[in-house]
Amino acid sequence: MEKIKLFTPATIANVSCGFDVLGLCLDTIGDEMIIRKTNKKGVRITKIVGQNLPLEIEQNVAGVAVLALLEKVDTPYGFEIEIYKNIKPGSGIGSSAASAAGAVFGVNKLLDEPFSLQELIPFAMEGEKLASGTAHADNVAPALLGGFTLIRSYNPLDIIKINNPKELFATVIHPQIEVKTADARAVLKKKVTLKETVVQLGNLGGLISGLYTEDYNLIGRSLHDEIVEPSRSILIPEFDNVIAAAKKTGALGGGISGSGPSIFALSKGKLTAEKVGLAMAKTYKNLQIDFDIHVSKVNANGIKTL
Amino acid sequence: MEKIKLFTPATIANVSCGFDVLGLCLDTIGDEMIIRKTNKKGVRITKIVGQNLPLEIEQNVAGVAVLALLEKVDTPYGFEIEIYKNIKPGSGIGSSAASAAGAVFGVNKLLDEPFSLQELIPFAMEGEKLASGTAHADNVAPALLGGFTLIRSYNPLDIIKINNPKELFATVIHPQIEVKTADARAVLKKKVTLKETVVQLGNLGGLISGLYTEDYNLIGRSLHDEIVEPSRSILIPEFDNVIAAAKKTGALGGGISGSGPSIFALSKGKLTAEKVGLAMAKTYKNLQIDFDIHVSKVNANGIKTL
Repeated sequence: MEKIKLFTPATIANVSCGFDVLGLCLDTIGDEMIIRKTNKKGVRITKIVGQNLPLEIEQNVAGVAVLALLEKVDTPYGFEIEIYKNIKPGSGIGSSAASAAGAVFGVNKLLDEPFSLQELIPFAMEGEKLASGTAHADNVAPALLGGFTLIRSYNPLDIIKINNPKELFATVIHPQIEVKTADARAVLKKKVTLKETVVQLGNLGGLISGLYTEDYNLIGRSLHDEIVEPSRSILIPEFDNVIAAAKKTGALGGGISGSGPSIFALSKGKLTAEKVGLAMAKTYKNLQIDFDIHVSKVNANGIKTL
Repeated sequence: MEKIKLFTPATIANVSCGFDVLGLCLDTIGDEMIIRKTNKKGVRITKIVGQNLPLEIEQNVAGVAVLALLEKVDTPYGFEIEIYKNIKPGSGIGSSAASAAGAVFGVNKLLDEPFSLQELIPFAMEGEKLASGTAHADNVAPALLGGFTLIRSYNPLDIIKINNPKELFATVIHPQIEVKTADARAVLKKKVTLKETVVQLGNLGGLISGLYTEDYNLIGRSLHDEIVEPSRSILIPEFDNVIAAAKKTGALGGGISGSGPSIFALSKGKLTAEKVGLAMAKTYKNLQIDFDIHVSKVNANGIKTL
């Protein structure tokens, strides 16, 4: 194979009670990438459409992710990358992860897959390190593996793919405001009470249980974040009203996507997820804030070859 | 039915990373109870064999649990209870829970089951309140439901039965020392770091995932308690050595049973669990401390009618 064209999906990290451990993959929102194998060694980003992002390899999340991969494999080839961005940076739905994960997925395919999908995760994490300062996996893991992923441990890296209930849909509202990563971090408490931790453990356990047993009601009851949401949600306009409107319209529950500003809700079935999108939009209609609404099945398979 | 004879099993609460939310039911260690329906209203405990425990209804965990049940159902009958204790109080394997859960299970059967097993849990929790000051469910839930149970929430009470892998066995060593509940609580930190919480969430997620997928290796990797074990284990002689010996002998992992002093290990298969018991015993053989060893399949069904 000399050339590959990819769909690289958006992702939702944290997923309410799953702060810093859970992520899920979306299906209808994502970027496209074209990667070509060249006889000239090295990596070049030849085109970025849709966003103003650096073409310099060392400054680009896709570039550094591929460089990390190429350090571990001996190849006479080089690679040219074109990126067609649909996911807005800073939206909280894994824009950098889509590019980093997509780049290593594509290069791995063009090299006849020397690495498993699991093995690609640490390379993609190098892209996240460039984007946010921490080599986190909560977006690149679901982008690469699809469905729901759990980071059991970073040391050693141990990522588990969780069962993905067939009828689970996500609705996302992306208010086009900037939540600075520094602010999203600054509001986090460094310490939490043991009681809050136990509440979070109960809900995470319930959510994972509900995902395996495909018990949508249990999934909904478990979508409660005791620890992070109470402080982070104040950075997001109308957060409580958006969640309330979503639930009233039939959503199972929801929360902050990643560190925001996007808000997500999960629903059983596409029709409900679409109605939830309308209800979310209504909540925002009198604010002077632009927003996007995305409705998507949870994507069981992650990045796709087009 | 005028009379029922029961086996009321021991249970392991907390289960390492599942502090205050997980519990599991044992099979080969437990008490027996005989409960008779009488025409004279009220509850009487007519016999307790094996332990010196109060016969007064209001002072006995079985008594208060049955009184809580009888408040919610109109019956012309009364009940006489005999308790044959094999589980030592203070062992950390749910001695009070076995009596409280057994009593309400038996009375409910004799009344033709006005309550579901789930509905019996709050009554049994009243027994725990008498025993320890808190109406916790981490032992009575697995005693009543069997297998592994998760307390998703106390408010409202929401208890989930988790899949129970077929070949999972528990080995328990009960060192016959007293760990005062007050001490076991005093060593708990009131606050934990966000980082510790995330580690605990990752492992709990991994454990629940491993239970559903029957991935014994994942179950083992997840049996890590970041929060409670480091402080509580100092109250238990040879804790680290017992766990190390168990793992070296093939156990998947282990931890403190309840608030101790018992230590448990989980293994795949009976043979390994028995070898783990020998290894645990060896660790204790030069100490001047009596101990019991129990080896048991995880009991999928909870309390049994004999």
